[in-house]
Amino acid sequence: MSFVPSIKPETAPSGSRSQVLACFEETRALTDALAAPLSAEDQTIQSMPDASPAKWHRAHTSWFFETFILISKMGGHELFDKNYGYLFNSYYEAIGARHPRPERGLITRPSAEDVSKYRSHVNESVIALIENCSDDTWAEINPTLTLGIHHEQQHQELLLMDILHAFSCSPLEPAYAGTTPLPAHDAVSQAWISFPGGITQIGFKAATETEFAFDNESPQHEVILRPYRMANRQVTNREWLNFINDDGYRRAEFWLADGWSHVQNNGWNAPLYWQQDPSNQWSAFGLRGRQPLNLDAPVCHISYYEADAFAAWAGKRLPTEAEWEAAAENVPMDGNLLSSGALRPTPAASTEGLVQMVGDAWEYTQSPYVPYPGFKAATGAVGEYNGKFMSNQMVLRGGSCATPAGHIRKSYRNFFYPHQRWMFAGVRLAEDI
Amino acid sequence: MSFVPSIKPETAPSGSRSQVLACFEETRALTDALAAPLSAEDQTIQSMPDASPAKWHRAHTSWFFETFILISKMGGHELFDKNYGYLFNSYYEAIGARHPRPERGLITRPSAEDVSKYRSHVNESVIALIENCSDDTWAEINPTLTLGIHHEQQHQELLLMDILHAFSCSPLEPAYAGTTPLPAHDAVSQAWISFPGGITQIGFKAATETEFAFDNESPQHEVILRPYRMANRQVTNREWLNFINDDGYRRAEFWLADGWSHVQNNGWNAPLYWQQDPSNQWSAFGLRGRQPLNLDAPVCHISYYEADAFAAWAGKRLPTEAEWEAAAENVPMDGNLLSSGALRPTPAASTEGLVQMVGDAWEYTQSPYVPYPGFKAATGAVGEYNGKFMSNQMVLRGGSCATPAGHIRKSYRNFFYPHQRWMFAGVRLAEDI
Amino acid sequence: MSFVPSIKPETAPSGSRSQVLACFEETRALTDALAAPLSAEDQTIQSMPDASPAKWHRAHTSWFFETFILISKMGGHELFDKNYGYLFNSYYEAIGARHPRPERGLITRPSAEDVSKYRSHVNESVIALIENCSDDTWAEINPTLTLGIHHEQQHQELLLMDILHAFSCSPLEPAYAGTTPLPAHDAVSQAWISFPGGITQIGFKAATETEFAFDNESPQHEVILRPYRMANRQVTNREWLNFINDDGYRRAEFWLADGWSHVQNNGWNAPLYWQQDPSNQWSAFGLRGRQPLNLDAPVCHISYYEADAFAAWAGKRLPTEAEWEAAAENVPMDGNLLSSGALRPTPAASTEGLVQMVGDAWEYTQSPYVPYPGFKAATGAVGEYNGKFMSNQMVLRGGSCATPAGHIRKSYRNFFYPHQRWMFAGVRLAEDI
Amino acid sequence: MSFVPSIKPETAPSGSRSQVLACFEETRALTDALAAPLSAEDQTIQSMPDASPAKWHRAHTSWFFETFILISKMGGHELFDKNYGYLFNSYYEAIGARHPRPERGLITRPSAEDVSKYRSHVNESVIALIENCSDDTWAEINPTLTLGIHHEQQHQELLLMDILHAFSCSPLEPAYAGTTPLPAHDAVSQAWISFPGGITQIGFKAATETEFAFDNESPQHEVILRPYRMANRQVTNREWLNFINDDGYRRAEFWLADGWSHVQNNGWNAPLYWQQDPSNQWSAFGLRGRQPLNLDAPVCHISYYEADAFAAWAGKRLPTEAEWEAAAENVPMDGNLLSSGALRPTPAASTEGLVQMVGDAWEYTQSPYVPYPGFKAATGAVGEYNGKFMSNQMVLRGGSCATPAGHIRKSYRNFFYPHQRWMFAGVRLAEDI
Repeated sequence: MSFVPSIKPETAPSGSRSQVLACFEETRALTDALAAPLSAEDQTIQSMPDASPAKWHRAHTSWFFETFILISKMGGHELFDKNYGYLFNSYYEAIGARHPRPERGLITRPSAEDVSKYRSHVNESVIALIENCSDDTWAEINPTLTLGIHHEQQHQELLLMDILHAFSCSPLEPAYAGTTPLPAHDAVSQAWISFPGGITQIGFKAATETEFAFDNESPQHEVILRPYRMANRQVTNREWLNFINDDGYRRAEFWLADGWSHVQNNGWNAPLYWQQDPSNQWSAFGLRGRQPLNLDAPVCHISYYEADAFAAWAGKRLPTEAEWEAAAENVPMDGNLLSSGALRPTPAASTEGLVQMVGDAWEYTQSPYVPYPGFKAATGAVGEYNGKFMSNQMVLRGGSCATPAGHIRKSYRNFFYPHQRWMFAGVRLAEDI
Repeated sequence: MSFVPSIKPETAPSGSRSQVLACFEETRALTDALAAPLSAEDQTIQSMPDASPAKWHRAHTSWFFETFILISKMGGHELFDKNYGYLFNSYYEAIGARHPRPERGLITRPSAEDVSKYRSHVNESVIALIENCSDDTWAEINPTLTLGIHHEQQHQELLLMDILHAFSCSPLEPAYAGTTPLPAHDAVSQAWISFPGGITQIGFKAATETEFAFDNESPQHEVILRPYRMANRQVTNREWLNFINDDGYRRAEFWLADGWSHVQNNGWNAPLYWQQDPSNQWSAFGLRGRQPLNLDAPVCHISYYEADAFAAWAGKRLPTEAEWEAAAENVPMDGNLLSSGALRPTPAASTEGLVQMVGDAWEYTQSPYVPYPGFKAATGAVGEYNGKFMSNQMVLRGGSCATPAGHIRKSYRNFFYPHQRWMFAGVRLAEDI
Repeated sequence: MSFVPSIKPETAPSGSRSQVLACFEETRALTDALAAPLSAEDQTIQSMPDASPAKWHRAHTSWFFETFILISKMGGHELFDKNYGYLFNSYYEAIGARHPRPERGLITRPSAEDVSKYRSHVNESVIALIENCSDDTWAEINPTLTLGIHHEQQHQELLLMDILHAFSCSPLEPAYAGTTPLPAHDAVSQAWISFPGGITQIGFKAATETEFAFDNESPQHEVILRPYRMANRQVTNREWLNFINDDGYRRAEFWLADGWSHVQNNGWNAPLYWQQDPSNQWSAFGLRGRQPLNLDAPVCHISYYEADAFAAWAGKRLPTEAEWEAAAENVPMDGNLLSSGALRPTPAASTEGLVQMVGDAWEYTQSPYVPYPGFKAATGAVGEYNGKFMSNQMVLRGGSCATPAGHIRKSYRNFFYPHQRWMFAGVRLAEDI
Repeated sequence: MSFVPSIKPETAPSGSRSQVLACFEETRALTDALAAPLSAEDQTIQSMPDASPAKWHRAHTSWFFETFILISKMGGHELFDKNYGYLFNSYYEAIGARHPRPERGLITRPSAEDVSKYRSHVNESVIALIENCSDDTWAEINPTLTLGIHHEQQHQELLLMDILHAFSCSPLEPAYAGTTPLPAHDAVSQAWISFPGGITQIGFKAATETEFAFDNESPQHEVILRPYRMANRQVTNREWLNFINDDGYRRAEFWLADGWSHVQNNGWNAPLYWQQDPSNQWSAFGLRGRQPLNLDAPVCHISYYEADAFAAWAGKRLPTEAEWEAAAENVPMDGNLLSSGALRPTPAASTEGLVQMVGDAWEYTQSPYVPYPGFKAATGAVGEYNGKFMSNQMVLRGGSCATPAGHIRKSYRNFFYPHQRWMFAGVRLAEDI
């Protein structure tokens, strides 16, 4: 069965039991819906160390609720399976030993069906806990529950990234979401939007008491920005082809030294998943299978190195994360852009001002992923969530066509290594004024 | 369902259509029976480059019949799927491009179920061809059909080796064949059987016109042997423990230089699948799961390097393949030893003369795998079958508890790299007189 | 002969021909003095891809002057050897093909003696050019000449780092600078110096027209700092031992995820060059050979990962580069600290305020090496000098015992990968107020 | 200074003190003569793990005499340097720890000059011992001394192989032996010499009591040979070019599976050191620098895989080592062929019968290097000399232009891994009758 669910904006968890409950159920259901087109075999494999099997994502997100809520907060909770703690812990060193990441694809048992049972088991227990616990317990578990929901949303996007990569390794190139191409639109004309700079507030500030953000988005703090301009839209595939055709991948002058090494060692000559057929036509592999390159769509599946080199070639630069966040100030983030359920970047309709800030491809910034001034990691094992990764990675902003709508906000900091390409990442240019 | 079939001696293919047909059907059915305890997930993964997924074995053996018989000999045969040629070719360079071996575990589609359909499709076509073809065609296809049957028998053993390795990589250590241990027997006392040496014939000589052997077993030729002795039985786990306890894995003096590198680089300190628990008890993982070490059983899952080092420690040596074959002259090879369906080495009942020559573990010889004098590879793509591998490997003789009975004969030359351990390989000592 | 020259503050190049000339001669002579204790063999080897042979440093710094000044600016300059361009180019892609970095240690010819002749040849030509060129030419070459002098100073420190690493790979552990230990001093007591934060200027601002700085130190720009404290001195070996003895290298909780991988994959349990003898006494290998660990000296040869983990263990953090630079505002940088010619970190004499800001070990900051707002790389090949490396590296500030005095300034940004340890790098703690 | 000594037939060590003494002195002097064209830098580097620095060869051969004769047999011998045992042990596990082989190129000290002193020290002691020891001691040390001389002869050839490889890694491609090409000769016409086969003796049988052979050449034993033919001469460069031009390196059908992997993974398309210039002219790098390919000379610097593939392409096969030795029965091995001092393969003068059996390039056999029936390794540490390496390697027979004349005999078994190419190895074809 190959039915592709839209990724609908889920209810935001917000304090009250019934709201959190609804959001929990919706999120859990979405994960299963995303896995529905996958066979037991599809869910088992791991196509590279960076990726995880779909089955693992489904189990790990359940393990999170079991470990951080059921075991610690629900008296008498019976473990579904005592081995799962070892199998489905991801990074949390404080929680104990765990299965080596690169061997996740060797776990044939539990089966995909067993994992479904595990999910049900955890769902039932969590729902019972939400419905029946005391107000004190509720106050205690609410933040972790909310974190767990957002954690699962992250894995929803990872699941899509990972299965796309897995399918790209098969000579059959299966299509996750059917092979009907998205409707084509013309890209809007490129324009430059000016921003005045100055001192501005960056970072998450809750509008209401129950809004959620990860610890790495705090504390809110002031930064000084110089006047700058940002492109109204993301770079398109057509523009990227110009870069390729101008020998962009063969001219060291545009590249960071580390990027140039990567280009040469890996023979990069186009974004990940692109292919040129014998008659020189380009195609791109995506969740809808291999499709002719849509020249008007935002470029996707590029590394930081490529984004930076493209900017150098174009005589521009990437924005900083502070510039991006300041620019996003007045852009609506209500998730409507996702209503098409698009799983491949689409050009936004012609619009004034900034477009494609969310819902197409994550946007590279030139900012390394480091703690904000005054950053404090959360206490306990969940404190390992973000701070541990604050080296060697770059911040991306916005949100992609594979990002759950409820997971999008202006202060959100996504991060990847500068050579990684399997995420839905694109680029928007900036320049000094 | 975890039902383990006995590996019964199948009918030998021998010339007549009905006999070959029976043998074909029996062999094809056995492969499916061997895969029956495996879930779709189990059948998909590849736990190391040397191994292949169970699903792949099932498809590749079918591809062999489709490619070398149906496509070339059956007018109007419709390919089950045009992609399978690429996916399930193993080595045959002459047949065209093929999927890279180390990526066989990334093939989630076709599913295990699709492969079952493929097998049925091939079976039906082959059976129809056997039943209906002209006598001329029959004469033409009979040798390839017979080769295909023996080829599939080889993959039956590989399937068991590979799934054992795959399961050993899972923290859950699933038991392929249930967890009931085999009945224990005492090992027979070690004794030395003398052989006079002299000029002797080595290699396959068909007793009847329809007997089968691989090309690498021919031509029959004379060799000169010095007088020698061979141990009446294989080395036991008890004896191997003595080697371990005498620091066998830590004393360079016993080891070939290449072997010593392997020991150090890989931290070998016992046969593959052995484990010592905190109270120093040894166990071994096998098709019946993890079991306490049976001290009377033949040692298994050792490399050539280990076999050679053990022999040096014991003040003995390994036999040559000619010595082994000459010694096997009067040993019955009728497959009765396999009647227990044992999938783990068992000590043979006390017996005079050589025991355990077949049916427990393959036995290392000190002979590198090279062509016999006057060897000619078969013509055509199937000529790539054996000759291509005549470098860097060592010959093993006999047959293991995982070898189909019909696949056992005195002249059979099995071969592996000297560092490999995942096959059911043990050791029998020899010495000069 | 093992004579170790002091690294004296050289005349700063400053505009006038005679001043630049004096500085050029002094710098060129210092390089040769640093190489004087090294045999032809010592100068040839490359002990790891990150390092270069001493001979290569001596030739490459000459190649820089030949390529960027003599070839382009001196009519009729005869190349000393046409192969040297290929052999001794380091990174400059714009200049053409170059010998692969990891194979620099395979260049036995030209000999160390040939390289001495090359240096003389370049020296003579450059000196003649300085003395005789027209004022227009002088105006043109002065900046490149000054850059070349600073470039050579960088390689002076690299030469010392690299030979220390090379000698550490020899079982004989040769002492570069004799084996007389430095006089011991007690470390000053740790104290915390407060800084108010606020908006402050960061980056190079020339006090006079002829002062030099690299492009990566510009443009000067404003940053906002929160109030903070910095330790008055660097972390000592005694303090580092406390970290070790508290299982610092075995507790994941203190480490960045990438750092923890490094610790485990490389078996790190102490700074580079440290060793514990059978009676548990620690020693450190340095330019004066292996010496008992000086507990009062600043810790040296640690990676960013280790510095960050130590700070986490200590409940502190690393300063940002802006904090460091702001704190350094009133610290004298006149190079007097180097007057001892110390080639191993020494504790500074007891002093009020910040000590050891320069002259002992480079100090890690938590700032990734990225362009300053408005950064523009220099044009031409020398523009590849710094900007190319602005990814994946961390900024270090100050200057070490191996840094030429004239190379020290408050705005100087040194940078290394977070796993590297062979540079003279230590750590100073900071904290929020 | 680039003076190339002829490798003259040295006196064979043969029992009497004066004869062994003369041979010892001659051999020691030849090693130094071979190193004479090398600078201190040249002698220091190691261009790949398989190779060793020239300085190391010079020291290791001295260490052999010091360790196995002076230390054990000469009362009161003072070690030249106590560190040398660690530095210059090669494989002998029984003698204790040793410097890791791949790091031999990091040993800058002792210097080349120190090693010369070490050689003199050992020479003087050994000579004094020979001249002055008792007859009993003489009887004891004579075999080890003789072994040491032959051991040093092996390293003389290794020194030439290794320095050729080292120089090939330099962009300057220095010429070890000047750049004057050897006089050209036409190759003799190819012809096939028949041999009757039958039972024949193989292995070393001393004609006199004092003749020397390595343990691996014994015991002499009978083998059965089928009638066969061998080519009268080695394969020429011209013939090899035909193989290349017939796509020999691109057609899997000729290659062993392991060989084909090597071809593809390493991009082999010609013998080692061959290069094609833009006008398609081939040249080969050798001890006389880069020279245009001499089409009449024997092909050299090929791997076993290439030799085997060439034979398959030619419709022939490689001889076994027994066939080679039987064929060599009546070929003079007096070393006269080496009188030219040729360091590059030269075509032999036109001759009837087998030519080029020694003195040009080692000849591959299809025989893996395994013990002869009844082989016993020598006792003590020197017993590690040959037996340790009896796996994964192939036997080569004859002797090359770099083999000392005294080191050549019919029963000599040289051995290398099937992928190695840096030795002076060529190929002679054989076929069944």
